[in-house]
Amino acid sequence: MFSVVIGIAGGSGSGKTTFARLVIERLGADNVLLVQHDAYYKDISHQPFEVRAASNFDHPDALDTALCAEHIRALKAGRTVEQPLYDFSTHLRTGETRRLEPRPFIVVDGILILAEESLREQMDLRVFVDAPDAVRLERRSRRDVVERGRTPESILEQWRGSVDPMHRAFVEPSRRHADIIVPFESMNEAAADAVAEYCRKIRNPEV
Amino acid sequence: MFSVVIGIAGGSGSGKTTFARLVIERLGADNVLLVQHDAYYKDISHQPFEVRAASNFDHPDALDTALCAEHIRALKAGRTVEQPLYDFSTHLRTGETRRLEPRPFIVVDGILILAEESLREQMDLRVFVDAPDAVRLERRSRRDVVERGRTPESILEQWRGSVDPMHRAFVEPSRRHADIIVPFESMNEAAADAVAEYCRKIRNPEV
Repeated sequence: MFSVVIGIAGGSGSGKTTFARLVIERLGADNVLLVQHDAYYKDISHQPFEVRAASNFDHPDALDTALCAEHIRALKAGRTVEQPLYDFSTHLRTGETRRLEPRPFIVVDGILILAEESLREQMDLRVFVDAPDAVRLERRSRRDVVERGRTPESILEQWRGSVDPMHRAFVEPSRRHADIIVPFESMNEAAADAVAEYCRKIRNPEV
Repeated sequence: MFSVVIGIAGGSGSGKTTFARLVIERLGADNVLLVQHDAYYKDISHQPFEVRAASNFDHPDALDTALCAEHIRALKAGRTVEQPLYDFSTHLRTGETRRLEPRPFIVVDGILILAEESLREQMDLRVFVDAPDAVRLERRSRRDVVERGRTPESILEQWRGSVDPMHRAFVEPSRRHADIIVPFESMNEAAADAVAEYCRKIRNPEV
């Protein structure tokens, strides 16, 4: 039995993770495997900390997309994979792994997943979650201040220095690969329902 | 038994009618009533032809939206309505009507339907079909040359004079009311499937 793969992309702070959660809820959490592209940051342990910290983590080259694509392919074929564990504070792979088991539905989440053909071609449905820049910056700031203890200044600096330029260069243009664009200024339950129903239908065409 | 109402908006040439057709096909043509907002152009027979022909048909005021909203409300409540018949060549209502019977699904189609709260509030799902300006102009030109015998010059003049300004003023901003935005540079079967599945689910929640 094959897995249905749904890609959920969108810029930083667009609400894609919240939207993914709405979809997963509807499909039943036990039926869904969430694969996050940013678990596949490249291991740059050969570089000193300062160089690592100054890296452009918003550029596609920062991610080991080939491995992510290989994992999705394996999971679709019913095989188990070992996902690298990444430590966002040291910018290093921990050396440990997380075992991912195949499930009926696979949600792939990440800002750049629609920019990468090797990921895109494996998806049954491509979703791009969209919110205005100001809303996205506001959400990202709130999250980074609360969850990561950053200062508003450092967040804005990072936004201007890499998040926003990379968004314009790679994320925003990738929306043209989407089947569905979800506006996410406020909760969008209807879109989550539609996406979940579509996935269920592909999985059980006879219903 | 209530009707499920799906609004399909989008600029001129966006592909909204084609997309509506994909959705209707999936729901079964016999189950769907298509209500086109532009059947409700106001009767301006008291004005001479030259004035009528020079009217701004892309402005919300050109349409009798109150009547359209009343009809949708009646249809949802299971009542039959008489839709005015409009002659696009003379810019007049013909005086004849078309009988609309309630159906399980009602698709409301028009460039301005998401700009009008009285229509929007009756919809179970709001869809905005989106295509780049150049694609829309190209599609509109092809259609108007073939179907309406217009010259490319007159089409471009109308585009610059009213279609495009009204698009920016009313149509484009209305996309923020959409639950789902459908990119329609090429056929988008996945989005049509998702919309149809969503509608079916609302209609038959037990399935």
